[in-house]
Amino acid sequence: MNNLSELLTDTQFNIVFNMLSLGIASMLFTTFFLVLARDRVLPRYRLAVLISATVTGIAAYHYFRMFDSFNHAFSSLDGAMNNAAVYNVGYRYVDWLLTVPLLLMEIVAVLALTRQLQSSLLKRLVPAAALMIVLGYPGDAKLDIWGIAPSVWGLLSTIPFLYILYVLFIELSKSLVRQSAGVQKKIKQLRLLLIATWGVYPIAFIFAMNSDGFVADQFVAREVGYTIADILAKCLFGLLIFSIARMKSAEDDAEFAKTEFRD
Amino acid sequence: MNNLSELLTDTQFNIVFNMLSLGIASMLFTTFFLVLARDRVLPRYRLAVLISATVTGIAAYHYFRMFDSFNHAFSSLDGAMNNAAVYNVGYRYVDWLLTVPLLLMEIVAVLALTRQLQSSLLKRLVPAAALMIVLGYPGDAKLDIWGIAPSVWGLLSTIPFLYILYVLFIELSKSLVRQSAGVQKKIKQLRLLLIATWGVYPIAFIFAMNSDGFVADQFVAREVGYTIADILAKCLFGLLIFSIARMKSAEDDAEFAKTEFRD
Repeated sequence: MNNLSELLTDTQFNIVFNMLSLGIASMLFTTFFLVLARDRVLPRYRLAVLISATVTGIAAYHYFRMFDSFNHAFSSLDGAMNNAAVYNVGYRYVDWLLTVPLLLMEIVAVLALTRQLQSSLLKRLVPAAALMIVLGYPGDAKLDIWGIAPSVWGLLSTIPFLYILYVLFIELSKSLVRQSAGVQKKIKQLRLLLIATWGVYPIAFIFAMNSDGFVADQFVAREVGYTIADILAKCLFGLLIFSIARMKSAEDDAEFAKTEFRD
Repeated sequence: MNNLSELLTDTQFNIVFNMLSLGIASMLFTTFFLVLARDRVLPRYRLAVLISATVTGIAAYHYFRMFDSFNHAFSSLDGAMNNAAVYNVGYRYVDWLLTVPLLLMEIVAVLALTRQLQSSLLKRLVPAAALMIVLGYPGDAKLDIWGIAPSVWGLLSTIPFLYILYVLFIELSKSLVRQSAGVQKKIKQLRLLLIATWGVYPIAFIFAMNSDGFVADQFVAREVGYTIADILAKCLFGLLIFSIARMKSAEDDAEFAKTEFRD
């Protein structure tokens, strides 16, 4: 594809264009699958699967918007803007503000803990997640609020991130002992996936910090990095939640296991 | 319809235009049918049917995009570009990257093997399928990566393809002995369909390799070949999966057989 843009080479334009389209397809059809497959787990795990589908659904909406925003900003076939400032970074942050707290709810919901323990975990994880995103935005978008430097906003948003890790690795571990060995293994995979993918965001953030104007290579690396991280953190994460829900359903109910599995 | 394009004759334009529309209709309504027909098989086969529907759904999205991209590139009624480079080859590869691993999951899921055997097969088939597509793209799109020639990328992507054939024909055959004669026959049809249709892609690839610029005849042959192969490998394949699931459901459960069939 030829973009006729003055800001990105054809190859750079195509990479971002196709990555955003991959984002749309991944989010949209993970949603499709999870909605239709929700009855393949016991009722007590269906909310966890539906929250996963809501997360990928919200992300699908934002990827459609980002795809259009990218074309509008960089393709002279679609408006002839050639103006990087037209590309709206805000979509990613609005998306994360809604989806990151929901991702933490998925983990808690799929464990089917006591209602008291569940509510105590959520009361700490959800506000911390929202705070992390809100503090990260002014740094990434380079907004001048109260004269605070981007790097300081980045550092501030690390505090709730570390608190979330503490709750997931120390507090949550206490309730894991009651789960089966198979479920414990999957939950540990889930936590590692979360750290590995969430780690991409601050790295992309730091990359972007070193420049003042528009640097094409950095822009491409950041969009690709964010998109891959989003697909792993939402689609793969949601499918892992589904497979934990299915494993726990089979453990909870022998009749269900016989209907759904051969062995 | 008259395209007023300088790159394709009216006939050539109409052939590709109508093939892409056939692609949309086939993918969209195979998805529609499989989603609505999923309850006509036993619960343990429903995930296989849902994965088939997800595959055709993802392909429907990409055929809509390709149809628009084709019009944008070749029809002067729709932007007057007359620029073959505007047609985005990336959509096909993004589609295959998502759907080819899922097609292999369909076969494994419909056999309702033990969970251990299933996971061992998928751990080998899914990464091999993704690798095959990723290695094929730079060759087909003629990207200059590390100065490696397109034909070399094509050859490299043949290695995971042969590995997939080995797993499907040697490893999977061991587990086929436990299936009924009717199911064995259908699975063998499925494998042949897979080889026959996947064989179209490297042939189209080799055709495209011999030219540097845009050759209208080759372009048309490739788009027609890819579209027919896609319809067979996804729609026909998915419907065969559905019919295997129905056959196995009737074998597993006499009550189900009585409700669903006359004999």
